[in-house]
Amino acid sequence: MRTYLDCIPCFIRQSLDSVRAATADAALHEQIMREVLQIAGRMDFSQSPPSMAQVVHRRIRQLTGIEDPFRAVKDRQNQLAVELGRVLGDRRPASMGALEFAVRLAIAGNIIDLGAKSGLDEAGIHTAMLAALEEPLAGSMDRLARAIQDARRLLYLTDNAGEIVFDRLLIEQMPPDRVTVAVRGTPVINDATREDAEFAGMTDLVPVIDNGSDAPGTILASCSQEFRQCFQRADLIIAKGQGNYETLCDEPAPICFLLRVKCPVIARDLGCDVDRMVIRCVA
Amino acid sequence: MRTYLDCIPCFIRQSLDSVRAATADAALHEQIMREVLQIAGRMDFSQSPPSMAQVVHRRIRQLTGIEDPFRAVKDRQNQLAVELGRVLGDRRPASMGALEFAVRLAIAGNIIDLGAKSGLDEAGIHTAMLAALEEPLAGSMDRLARAIQDARRLLYLTDNAGEIVFDRLLIEQMPPDRVTVAVRGTPVINDATREDAEFAGMTDLVPVIDNGSDAPGTILASCSQEFRQCFQRADLIIAKGQGNYETLCDEPAPICFLLRVKCPVIARDLGCDVDRMVIRCVA
Repeated sequence: MRTYLDCIPCFIRQSLDSVRAATADAALHEQIMREVLQIAGRMDFSQSPPSMAQVVHRRIRQLTGIEDPFRAVKDRQNQLAVELGRVLGDRRPASMGALEFAVRLAIAGNIIDLGAKSGLDEAGIHTAMLAALEEPLAGSMDRLARAIQDARRLLYLTDNAGEIVFDRLLIEQMPPDRVTVAVRGTPVINDATREDAEFAGMTDLVPVIDNGSDAPGTILASCSQEFRQCFQRADLIIAKGQGNYETLCDEPAPICFLLRVKCPVIARDLGCDVDRMVIRCVA
Repeated sequence: MRTYLDCIPCFIRQSLDSVRAATADAALHEQIMREVLQIAGRMDFSQSPPSMAQVVHRRIRQLTGIEDPFRAVKDRQNQLAVELGRVLGDRRPASMGALEFAVRLAIAGNIIDLGAKSGLDEAGIHTAMLAALEEPLAGSMDRLARAIQDARRLLYLTDNAGEIVFDRLLIEQMPPDRVTVAVRGTPVINDATREDAEFAGMTDLVPVIDNGSDAPGTILASCSQEFRQCFQRADLIIAKGQGNYETLCDEPAPICFLLRVKCPVIARDLGCDVDRMVIRCVA
């Protein structure tokens, strides 16, 4: 997906949040913001928003000297997800299949990330997760179920830390010998890396690879050859979250996107409302 | 007030809204946004946010060739304010003095501007204006009343169109021979100019001058000599809205600011909550 002009203010805001999370040095905040504005002003808008974020977060790491500014945030999010998982794991409504329950939790798990940004406390996140079990789900659960059933080589692309704990519950619903899970190659924002996959117990279940990239999404040209091969050979790719949607929605590949719509730009692109949980299977 | 880093994303968003209001030409939207990003990246952050807005809105007028992109918006806002004024004019609670009632309406009139941005319809704006008659008012109404009573030369700085209709109701509570009203010198966003003062009937009541500037606030160095003299001679300046607060809060002058707090930066600066109606008298 191209970068729309509406993405820019939001991107500037996210960059500011990120540099503040990485360092308390106000001079660095200002320096990064000035650079971000210059980068954004010269950006090729046909590129996806995560490609700009990739450049900016590299620069934040370089200037602060901190390789993983969000490690502590990710640890908290993982811990919270485990606690939520314990409480929610047996709350499946009698009328809901195990796969749909797991899909809903995996999409809803993104609330942990959103919650942190919107000031929701843990009780609020718990309530929002419960609500997500009953709210409308745009797209076809049946189509997703069939795609999973038919897949021989399934590649599952994770999104954030925290959320990855719920991804594991969804992976448990799939034949383990047919699934590979991929995480980001390098820490970027609070996206899940191998460390988070290990924390979530994903590595005990299925092969976990990293994509070799430091983009907060999946920019194939930026990924390792190993990952690209795995991507090309997969007959089903399940891609979690907006960053993966923004970077892969124009790829001619058999992808099912699972995401919560967080902004009006994506909502317009998908033809649904903001906040909606979406399954979008293409090709 | 200096420009805080938090102001930047908001400023980029406002610039995008403004260029879209001025023209439907997508190439111009992109050109202006790229320029805005460059301008913001090089900006002297010790200047107030309206000084950056002044530069950007000049450029929008220059590139689109439209001198007053918001004229139709301002006409609608003026018309709506007149209708609201008719309904609300006699809704003064028995326990409330006429001056406080007029002050509250004059501050609350900013809802017409906010409403347009947040998608409130006219019924919603009406409800919000009614609620504003009862909500807490930060600052001292008594101090403002005394300052008005004691003033010999009162300069009243307006903010937006629409709102100026309620400013007139407040001016009616003041001795007309001691009051001068000032509007912006040149159209900028939906700020009130002489045309709006005439529409509101302000020119029939008191002398109306313009400040000679095209900033969405009062940057003294950018104002005409006539205006600066009037400002220096005034023994009370009543300054409406955030733009005037941002540009005048550090001036050593006898100013009473009347505003609704629209953002966290101003809220922090004033030590109150966002959305609060505020009277802040200094010097």
